[in-house]
Amino acid sequence: MSIKFKGIAASDGIGIAKAYLLVTPDLSFRRVTITDPDAEIDRLHQALDTSVDDLKVIKARAEGQLDPEVLAIFDVHIELLTDPEMIKQIEQLIKTQKINAEQGLKDVTDRFINTLEAMKENRYMQERAADVRDITKRVLSHLLGKKLPDLAGVNKPVILVAHEVTPSDTSQMNKKYIKGIVTDLGGRTSHSAIMSRTLEIPAVVGTGDATQKIKHDDTLILDGLSGVAISNPTETEVQDYQKQAQHFEHLRQEWAKLVSAPSVSADGKKFEIASNIGTPTDLADVSKAGADAVGLFRSEFLYMDSSSLPTEEEQYKAYKRVVKVMNGKPVVIRTMDIGGDKSLSYLHLPKELNPFLGYRAIRISLQRQAVFRTQLRALIRASKFGQLRIMFPMIATLEEFRQCKAIFIDEKKKLQVDDPGIGDDIKLGIMVEVPAAAIFAEAFAKEVDFFSIGTNDLIQYTFAADRGNECVSYLYQPYNPGLLKLIKHVIDAAHQEGKTAAMCGEMAGDAVALPLLMGMGLDEYSMSSSSVLRTRSTMKSLDTTKCAELVEHVLNTALTNDDTQKMVKEFLGK
Amino acid sequence: MSIKFKGIAASDGIGIAKAYLLVTPDLSFRRVTITDPDAEIDRLHQALDTSVDDLKVIKARAEGQLDPEVLAIFDVHIELLTDPEMIKQIEQLIKTQKINAEQGLKDVTDRFINTLEAMKENRYMQERAADVRDITKRVLSHLLGKKLPDLAGVNKPVILVAHEVTPSDTSQMNKKYIKGIVTDLGGRTSHSAIMSRTLEIPAVVGTGDATQKIKHDDTLILDGLSGVAISNPTETEVQDYQKQAQHFEHLRQEWAKLVSAPSVSADGKKFEIASNIGTPTDLADVSKAGADAVGLFRSEFLYMDSSSLPTEEEQYKAYKRVVKVMNGKPVVIRTMDIGGDKSLSYLHLPKELNPFLGYRAIRISLQRQAVFRTQLRALIRASKFGQLRIMFPMIATLEEFRQCKAIFIDEKKKLQVDDPGIGDDIKLGIMVEVPAAAIFAEAFAKEVDFFSIGTNDLIQYTFAADRGNECVSYLYQPYNPGLLKLIKHVIDAAHQEGKTAAMCGEMAGDAVALPLLMGMGLDEYSMSSSSVLRTRSTMKSLDTTKCAELVEHVLNTALTNDDTQKMVKEFLGK
Repeated sequence: MSIKFKGIAASDGIGIAKAYLLVTPDLSFRRVTITDPDAEIDRLHQALDTSVDDLKVIKARAEGQLDPEVLAIFDVHIELLTDPEMIKQIEQLIKTQKINAEQGLKDVTDRFINTLEAMKENRYMQERAADVRDITKRVLSHLLGKKLPDLAGVNKPVILVAHEVTPSDTSQMNKKYIKGIVTDLGGRTSHSAIMSRTLEIPAVVGTGDATQKIKHDDTLILDGLSGVAISNPTETEVQDYQKQAQHFEHLRQEWAKLVSAPSVSADGKKFEIASNIGTPTDLADVSKAGADAVGLFRSEFLYMDSSSLPTEEEQYKAYKRVVKVMNGKPVVIRTMDIGGDKSLSYLHLPKELNPFLGYRAIRISLQRQAVFRTQLRALIRASKFGQLRIMFPMIATLEEFRQCKAIFIDEKKKLQVDDPGIGDDIKLGIMVEVPAAAIFAEAFAKEVDFFSIGTNDLIQYTFAADRGNECVSYLYQPYNPGLLKLIKHVIDAAHQEGKTAAMCGEMAGDAVALPLLMGMGLDEYSMSSSSVLRTRSTMKSLDTTKCAELVEHVLNTALTNDDTQKMVKEFLGK
Repeated sequence: MSIKFKGIAASDGIGIAKAYLLVTPDLSFRRVTITDPDAEIDRLHQALDTSVDDLKVIKARAEGQLDPEVLAIFDVHIELLTDPEMIKQIEQLIKTQKINAEQGLKDVTDRFINTLEAMKENRYMQERAADVRDITKRVLSHLLGKKLPDLAGVNKPVILVAHEVTPSDTSQMNKKYIKGIVTDLGGRTSHSAIMSRTLEIPAVVGTGDATQKIKHDDTLILDGLSGVAISNPTETEVQDYQKQAQHFEHLRQEWAKLVSAPSVSADGKKFEIASNIGTPTDLADVSKAGADAVGLFRSEFLYMDSSSLPTEEEQYKAYKRVVKVMNGKPVVIRTMDIGGDKSLSYLHLPKELNPFLGYRAIRISLQRQAVFRTQLRALIRASKFGQLRIMFPMIATLEEFRQCKAIFIDEKKKLQVDDPGIGDDIKLGIMVEVPAAAIFAEAFAKEVDFFSIGTNDLIQYTFAADRGNECVSYLYQPYNPGLLKLIKHVIDAAHQEGKTAAMCGEMAGDAVALPLLMGMGLDEYSMSSSSVLRTRSTMKSLDTTKCAELVEHVLNTALTNDDTQKMVKEFLGK
């Protein structure tokens, strides 16, 4: 019988394929006293060798598709699996204690893991502990004759069904075969959701119990447009969705024609549709999407993928590369947004009870000025190669922005001694993501060059609800009229002072939000590259005067998130 | 030489006395092989006995001054110190391993602590682990001949100097001798600050390094009015502050005359000054202060001081008592605000990364409706004995309030079967503490009976800064013009619909905030009972028309928290 799952529409598109359950099998075993240690040691070596082979295959498949940093993890795992010291210790345990290979393996790797984990402040060691845990799982699965889910080994079209999808799962996915993703957990801003949009894989997240009710190899329909998954669908349902999928494919092809088109409304008003990127390697997607700008370049990767602070030179090279590739189009680079959910062992940040309300982003930069000044110098130097803008995250008060600006000017002046005029064209803006900044936007607008509304955090703080916490996910309410009023206030405040207002949260690429934001006159929409062309296409069909009327109607009459959603859907004729 | 410490003025008043350093001495020791176990066991028993004597003295002194629940802790400690099983284990260790009593004690108590702490989900066991740690410290101090700070033993006037003051320290304080408190850590809403206002002890918190620079028995001046402490003051400084202290004492006596006076402005406008209370025992302070109402009765104590959910009957009795004592004056009772920093083991709440942005207060009540309905029934029944109002915490959306109201009506109807008309006079209001509710106050005002602005949380969320986190304490900005604008919006929205607007955060009792709030027309000011009379006195001197002009001036010209503070101080002629 067909079962329908309702979740959150996290990534556009329709997929129909067999279910692939990404669930770890039971790897429990008993301690056994053995009589033939040599045979047991042979079993161990076979399992180790097969594990190494697994990883080599996975790595070879992933080559070219994944970032070099991700590929490097496979090498670390292979190295661990062939570590002579570890193997010797397991062999000795098997011989002296006459125990089975499973127990020998576990005893030794547990010892490694405990030692590594004891170094609590050392993120590197913590990651290595996770690596040892991973390889232990793999070797155990071979010893026990069980199959680990092998995402990288998938070689036919499937729809992934998982509790949630982790970054390490993502690294093993072959986009070609993954026709959709269904998860139990997650909201529109979870890793699974953002990743699936980036990879253009249809996704429905937050279904609650998909992994418990869907079986491996069940036929599955996934509708990432309306947030529905259907297991064991009827023939009629399959046909119906095949038609919809064809229609969506057709749309996608139409959208692709807009790669060089301007971003304009039906009545000819010009906007800017930009891409959010995380590393310079994301630039390929930006040009594929024909984005008008990079609206948010997160600089964190420079700090995260390293065991020490990045040098000015390293940063300069990364910024320069992005600015050059964008060839005169604007590139908005956000200064370090560490803290919150992103910790760095080498910065020795304090442990906090509520990291999202703690020491993060600009709060760190303003206190650890050496780190901040290095980044600003690299940015100012890179500005020679294109249109670079600097954006400060988590600004809550005018004093914070003034301090940022003063430090920027200070560093600029120092650099101008050798290079007159350098950095003079750089525009300075702020992320509007702390409610205090949004509420007091009229004062900020007089002093900054531009705003970029970071809706993910702004919504999180405005509703006092952690966006990673399932218990309060109902409070992620982008269409709540109170929030819309606040966003409109920010846009109006910018325009009052002749400044531009952008948005770089997930909301900027949301189809329901688009007419509202256009009606409010938002200037720039920055989103996953995968959403750029769809948004440009929809924009072409919307008249800004009518959108403005819609906004007025919503703000005058809607009282809840649902109210707004209904009004917009009616407006869009859905 | 005199040293000046600048901190946050946390509790009014001036103190001059010797410093009492509340710092634990070094209790480290070495493992020693001993030759005479019997002598060592004698030492152990002496230390145990002296420890028991300590505690009996402390308890006897505290009797009558402290809550019975706090006194009970001393009994638990005495019981632990005389536990035959524990003593036997230590004696055996000393005999068999020939080790010193210190080592024997530590080995055994560590074992106890580890066992207790292993039960991670059990709050009761965690607290017992803390108890064992406490008594170990006490016995060790006697074995090592060191003096533990003995707050309860203080028998001459002192000013407490501490890193921070914990609730267990508070329980041992004899108010008579504590002339002031200086701490390194903390802000205006920290435990130390709130407690010192409640006990009417002058306090300066957040000095950063007072414990490092002030020595035991240094003469100390503490000015809780301006947030300054001076160690080793000059003769002139002492005389100057003695005069100020006399003046303040005089003021306090003047204020005391206002206990039955109405709360009115200079131009005769009537307001309401109310008390915040935590338990029915706080009622004595309420009547001493002559408060016009109880503006916030936190119902958490019913849930916290228990190992299971409070029954309807228990709650009914507590609510009835408060309502009856207040004798017709309004009593606003807030429904359960558990979660955030207050966890309850028996509710099995999830562990959260950001508890302040998580599953708390009304979010729990709406999901665990049985718990919520029990509380509402108790409240409705207690409403027969006076003017009871119900307030829902952490409301972010209209739907949440509507659900609360529907459940309330449902329970009321059930009770009305046997008791027609019961609960019909109850007013339903919300805490305005989530920015979303403040921003959209105009919509809420149409549906609720009253607002109470919870500034502690509202500021925390508006600035995205945990109020318990020292690293971001500079973002506690009650005078930030953006925040003031938001508060004014809430008050205006209430009045537009003919509803009342109250405030029950720390800001309501703040002298700088008062003219601003009066200028905005805030109707009710709910605060620590200790601030009621001072506020009533200041109110009498302020003209609401001039206050409104001040508000206009601030909102038109101030850009920062400091700007506002200067303008208000000028207005007040300070």
